[in-house]
Amino acid sequence: MLPRMAPPVFPQAIIARKRDGHALTPEEIAAFVSGVTRGDWADYQATALLMAIFLRGMTANETSCLTGAMMRSGAVADLSGIPGVKVDKHSTGGVGDKVSLILAPLVAACGVPVPMISGRGLGHTGGTLDKLESIPGFQVGLSLDAYAAQIRRIGVSMIGQTAEIAPADRKLYALRDVTATVESIPLICASIMSKKLAEGIDALVLDVTFGRGAFMKDKARARELATAMVAIGQAMGKPTRALLTATDQPLGRSVGNAVEVVESIEALKGRGPADLMEVTFALGAQMLLLGKAATQPSEARARLEHAIADGSALEKFRDLVTAQGGDARVIDDYARLPQAPLVRELTAPASGCVTDVDPMAIAQAALLLGAGRANVSAGIDHAVGLTDLVKIGEIVPCGGRLCTIHAHDESMLAVALQLLQVAFAIGERPAAPPMLIDELIE
Amino acid sequence: MLPRMAPPVFPQAIIARKRDGHALTPEEIAAFVSGVTRGDWADYQATALLMAIFLRGMTANETSCLTGAMMRSGAVADLSGIPGVKVDKHSTGGVGDKVSLILAPLVAACGVPVPMISGRGLGHTGGTLDKLESIPGFQVGLSLDAYAAQIRRIGVSMIGQTAEIAPADRKLYALRDVTATVESIPLICASIMSKKLAEGIDALVLDVTFGRGAFMKDKARARELATAMVAIGQAMGKPTRALLTATDQPLGRSVGNAVEVVESIEALKGRGPADLMEVTFALGAQMLLLGKAATQPSEARARLEHAIADGSALEKFRDLVTAQGGDARVIDDYARLPQAPLVRELTAPASGCVTDVDPMAIAQAALLLGAGRANVSAGIDHAVGLTDLVKIGEIVPCGGRLCTIHAHDESMLAVALQLLQVAFAIGERPAAPPMLIDELIE
Repeated sequence: MLPRMAPPVFPQAIIARKRDGHALTPEEIAAFVSGVTRGDWADYQATALLMAIFLRGMTANETSCLTGAMMRSGAVADLSGIPGVKVDKHSTGGVGDKVSLILAPLVAACGVPVPMISGRGLGHTGGTLDKLESIPGFQVGLSLDAYAAQIRRIGVSMIGQTAEIAPADRKLYALRDVTATVESIPLICASIMSKKLAEGIDALVLDVTFGRGAFMKDKARARELATAMVAIGQAMGKPTRALLTATDQPLGRSVGNAVEVVESIEALKGRGPADLMEVTFALGAQMLLLGKAATQPSEARARLEHAIADGSALEKFRDLVTAQGGDARVIDDYARLPQAPLVRELTAPASGCVTDVDPMAIAQAALLLGAGRANVSAGIDHAVGLTDLVKIGEIVPCGGRLCTIHAHDESMLAVALQLLQVAFAIGERPAAPPMLIDELIE
Repeated sequence: MLPRMAPPVFPQAIIARKRDGHALTPEEIAAFVSGVTRGDWADYQATALLMAIFLRGMTANETSCLTGAMMRSGAVADLSGIPGVKVDKHSTGGVGDKVSLILAPLVAACGVPVPMISGRGLGHTGGTLDKLESIPGFQVGLSLDAYAAQIRRIGVSMIGQTAEIAPADRKLYALRDVTATVESIPLICASIMSKKLAEGIDALVLDVTFGRGAFMKDKARARELATAMVAIGQAMGKPTRALLTATDQPLGRSVGNAVEVVESIEALKGRGPADLMEVTFALGAQMLLLGKAATQPSEARARLEHAIADGSALEKFRDLVTAQGGDARVIDDYARLPQAPLVRELTAPASGCVTDVDPMAIAQAALLLGAGRANVSAGIDHAVGLTDLVKIGEIVPCGGRLCTIHAHDESMLAVALQLLQVAFAIGERPAAPPMLIDELIE
């Protein structure tokens, strides 16, 4: 039981310093990240430090150091030879959030190059990559070279995280997921920002969600996360802004994969739901401002609306789909997307005003239909999901449609229906649509 | 980034509860301990929880539950068929601490059965097992059956922790050692008490050390640890008492393995150093009181002194050595113990009063001589160490002996000598011997 004499380079010495509430030095953080990447640190040492970070926190300097070390654990794309200010967007996620599919071609159509590397979903529906893969032939596995070449050629790439990007993050995220160390602001910050910075961006817009349908339930915590990420971006010399957005109900009217692609194409055709367009335009305006394609928010907004109205955003999406091997005919013929064999309407038991559409109940129903992954290795059914969702504040007659369910078979439909019974609330008094965009943090 | 829906039996749900500062339920603690023992919990999940326990603490109830679950992770010896109150002693360790070697036969000679399972040292010198193994032929690897049979026959067994005893502790201790989660009072408590309770004891006396030469530097923390362990013993129905003892200088005059065996035999022959005997008699008196071999401390002390004086304690040690295969002739012929080839005296550069003998410097010197293990797999040189150490308060003439060094070769001697130069302080004014026994906690 006598103390050992260990030189301070040992993992346990670094763990002990964070355990005791000290700020780690850049050298200690670098030793941790390279140790995890190369396997010099055992997983059980990494998780002990992750828990100590979770409970003791990190200063802004430590978080920046961690982000930088994680970014440098793999390849960092160099897009400096491509003209223009490259701007990406990242969202912490919400139910029905298909903003990236609309925003990337829309902003690129306005002349700002969009280098976008997305993740796969582990929640109720697939992530951006899964949604794109419901387009027959669409390839998300481009090399970093092909990714850069495509941005140079058409101004936009939407690919998956390659093995070259931030391998330390992949390792640490997998460990955090099974050790209850996900919900730590410095760790979330470093995970998101290390990947985004490795993409080769010049500037970044963040959509930090809060509320029932978000990862962060609490607005104060979401603001804390947004502020921390904006600070890291600035510290790394990449102008970064964040919008805080509320997730009181699903975004748009569709939740799934192919059904969200349809809604995104409809949005690019000028027929997007109001709430989806509000978030898309708000984020897009910030991207145009950072990308020097506009100097005033009102000017930015006008350019975005114009790119929808004149069809150039839709054409950019067509270019994107074609460039990545997808069947662009889906844009004009939705029947070419995967179709669920069973389509059934859920109707209202009484007339009234929609006072609630619970995003987590909707998410769980979509997951049970097969639209999401119950675990990392699970497959996804691209065809299933929900469409025609009513929105809070709308009036429905008795027997009127609350949503349309796209299911693979009767048993999955039955299970989803059970959950959906409690997802909607209909009242006698009118309800106002909830506020969406809460605050800009820059 | 959306939250997963995991049933609460998942390790991450239990980790999250402790992370958030909740007390774990007995079921959660049992799931953790059996999960670690059976391998259902990954090591990286165990260490995340260990760090959360380190930083969030545990209630007395949680610590008791953890102790019980760790005890039940393996075999629990049943000594109930053996007459008498079986009492053991455990020490948190100090430099030169050879009390167990004297105390076990001494207390057994007074009629109280002593079932003692000890560890190997990982510090400056070997543990009790290593010291015993410097006696040629001495076997510490008895089965639990042979251990019980020997206690029944001669009243004392001194063996090593078998694979059957508290396997969860072995696993967790190895993980704590490399993740900076050793110094946690609930974890130390559960580790020590689970093993002691699995020995089949009826009562327990703890020697909780503090100060420079101890694991716990701080007296308040040592008292906290002692109080927690006493509470667990009581909660488990095993009367437990603890002495807080100071470790301002090495205990006795010898530090090593064979040299400590010699000092222990000398003590059993009535020629032990005053400080060593003070601790031995103080702990022994509590053991006799708990073992119902005395009703008053003064009566207990008299019985112990008598067992030394009449040679019965020495004869019990002879029985013990013989029973466990050792060469009992060492008792009368110390030359049969391992002897170091080089024996050299360190002398005082000036005359004066010994004002300090730094236990950690002495420990480090013994380690460098080869008396301890630098790591788990290292071997031990039983012959080397230090003898004839002066004590604080003694007067030395210029050129007088400070200690005798027993070394394997000149290079190791030279390295040890360098450290020993700073281990002793000699002043002009008299110094009082430091207090040893500080407090009884029951």
